[in-house]
Amino acid sequence: MTLAFRWTSAHLQLRIAVVGANGATGLELCSLLLAAGHAPERLVCTARAARSLTIGHSTLPVQAHNDEVVAQCDLAFLCTPSGVSRELAPRLVARGVRVIDLSSALRMDPHIPLVVPEVNGDLLEAQPRLIANPNCTSAIALLPLSVIERLYGLAEVIVVSYQAASGAGAPGLQALRAELADVGAGGRGERAQDSPFAAALALNVIPAIAEVDAQGHSGEELKIVDELRKILRRPDLIVEASTARVPVERCHSVAVHLLTQREVHLPDLYAALDAAEGLVLVRDPHGPRPRECAGADPVSVGRVRAGNRGPRSLSFFAVGDQIRKGAALNALQIAGRLEPAP
Amino acid sequence: MTLAFRWTSAHLQLRIAVVGANGATGLELCSLLLAAGHAPERLVCTARAARSLTIGHSTLPVQAHNDEVVAQCDLAFLCTPSGVSRELAPRLVARGVRVIDLSSALRMDPHIPLVVPEVNGDLLEAQPRLIANPNCTSAIALLPLSVIERLYGLAEVIVVSYQAASGAGAPGLQALRAELADVGAGGRGERAQDSPFAAALALNVIPAIAEVDAQGHSGEELKIVDELRKILRRPDLIVEASTARVPVERCHSVAVHLLTQREVHLPDLYAALDAAEGLVLVRDPHGPRPRECAGADPVSVGRVRAGNRGPRSLSFFAVGDQIRKGAALNALQIAGRLEPAP
Repeated sequence: MTLAFRWTSAHLQLRIAVVGANGATGLELCSLLLAAGHAPERLVCTARAARSLTIGHSTLPVQAHNDEVVAQCDLAFLCTPSGVSRELAPRLVARGVRVIDLSSALRMDPHIPLVVPEVNGDLLEAQPRLIANPNCTSAIALLPLSVIERLYGLAEVIVVSYQAASGAGAPGLQALRAELADVGAGGRGERAQDSPFAAALALNVIPAIAEVDAQGHSGEELKIVDELRKILRRPDLIVEASTARVPVERCHSVAVHLLTQREVHLPDLYAALDAAEGLVLVRDPHGPRPRECAGADPVSVGRVRAGNRGPRSLSFFAVGDQIRKGAALNALQIAGRLEPAP
Repeated sequence: MTLAFRWTSAHLQLRIAVVGANGATGLELCSLLLAAGHAPERLVCTARAARSLTIGHSTLPVQAHNDEVVAQCDLAFLCTPSGVSRELAPRLVARGVRVIDLSSALRMDPHIPLVVPEVNGDLLEAQPRLIANPNCTSAIALLPLSVIERLYGLAEVIVVSYQAASGAGAPGLQALRAELADVGAGGRGERAQDSPFAAALALNVIPAIAEVDAQGHSGEELKIVDELRKILRRPDLIVEASTARVPVERCHSVAVHLLTQREVHLPDLYAALDAAEGLVLVRDPHGPRPRECAGADPVSVGRVRAGNRGPRSLSFFAVGDQIRKGAALNALQIAGRLEPAP
């Protein structure tokens, strides 16, 4: 098996904390670390409630969180809600722990690098002690967008998403499965109890993700706009987004319509997308599709075509596993590019 | 019950043919006509194979199609594949039958009116003998778009769709239901036998509808571009589209990002959308949603918000029952606005 992130013998010596290990992203992080050969003894998992995680043949104890045990680690991944990360990250950094935060708390802090390694991994050369991991939909859209930015310069980007239930974590996935089980049994699949969604997701589309502000923008849309600009280092870039939840278990999809600064030459673009790190160019005209991309490391891009707004217009459809490249894998790729010195 | 189309005592005297009555749209047409009080004896249903349709308490015989029986009618609705409509429509018109064709065969013929009554119903004043009914996604997007065109003038429209299984007719719906029954029983929901889709639709998104041409545009995307321009009478309008199939039973949704010619004043726009015929303005920030709109006559529009491309940019999300407003209902609204003279 080839790893999708760099993990040297020096990385294997690191004492690593996964805070919020009970969630979908925390679990994925632990799985990927174990698959990379990281010793369970060098993994410290904490969460609000103690439990144990079973991953393949390994069992990992999860402790009720306290800062002390995490402060003894070299590197901590925070898979915690924003409110927790905002307080915890600086406390841990002050105690000498390097922190990669997967929440949205610190992403837009101008002093904190927000990194997709294939796009702006050079920011890691300064060996920052605190790094923010991007929003899942942003990370997925950015892999093809950064190739286009490099070749032709982006002028305007419109991102419309089709986001999976597990983007809301395990409760989202459970709600969809409960509703579909009811549909399968001949029921109407009414909204599951404890669903994190505003309505039933089975056989439905919910056209906003997170709260919608007074101007009508959803939280997810604001994140996409802000993060694309920051990660591409294009504060001037025009970005619009529409985000919707669809009854898919895993993998977010985006339909993107964009304008470039310079004229697009499609054969060159295909070649560049094909060669790009972390990206797969799909030639099936009815792909890529989220079911086929679940559990895959790279982002898949297809339906690349000229637009109707002149030779600088372009559209594509991209799909990525939002728990992998959209979260856990990206965080590990960040860690793998940092010097593993404690 | 208030009818969503005009059906006078003179209309009730018409002998009406529904050709292709076995499909989802043909069935919906017959149901709506019976609900309007049209006598079953004045309905002639034909299809490739004879059968009988049960609608509520009525049973309608469906004859194996022959032109003779349809030629004795005053008005024929063609719910037939394009290849059939292209030949049949002119034959029937030549024999004195007024024809409303629901296929894509004749829509772009410059001599044939393509009509969404709320948008360009004035074309019916000339009492045309052959009228084309638009693509379902086009019709749904056009209701809010035409309000914006009237108020501010459209400059550029990008339509991204989330289309229901039943857009591919009864076989599409059956395929999705079979796949979901398998998921509900613990299976993986592999692609149903006889599915009209390129892949399993359950728990998936299929990012192209119909064939994709050499330039990478799907058939559905080409229809949306062409039909928006024709129905809005704006051959110059810049339109781009991305179309995808989602695991929804009924109702197509569209996320639209657009630019207008004149500055948008949101309160005025809300008022105009609220007042527009055939349109419901939804204030739920997580709506409208296809499940809640199934079987409804009007198109629902929500998430109306300013864009990030200056004071002429706007986005919205609209949902409509593609078998009603997207097909059968629109065709009946056309018929209801025509003089019912035989």
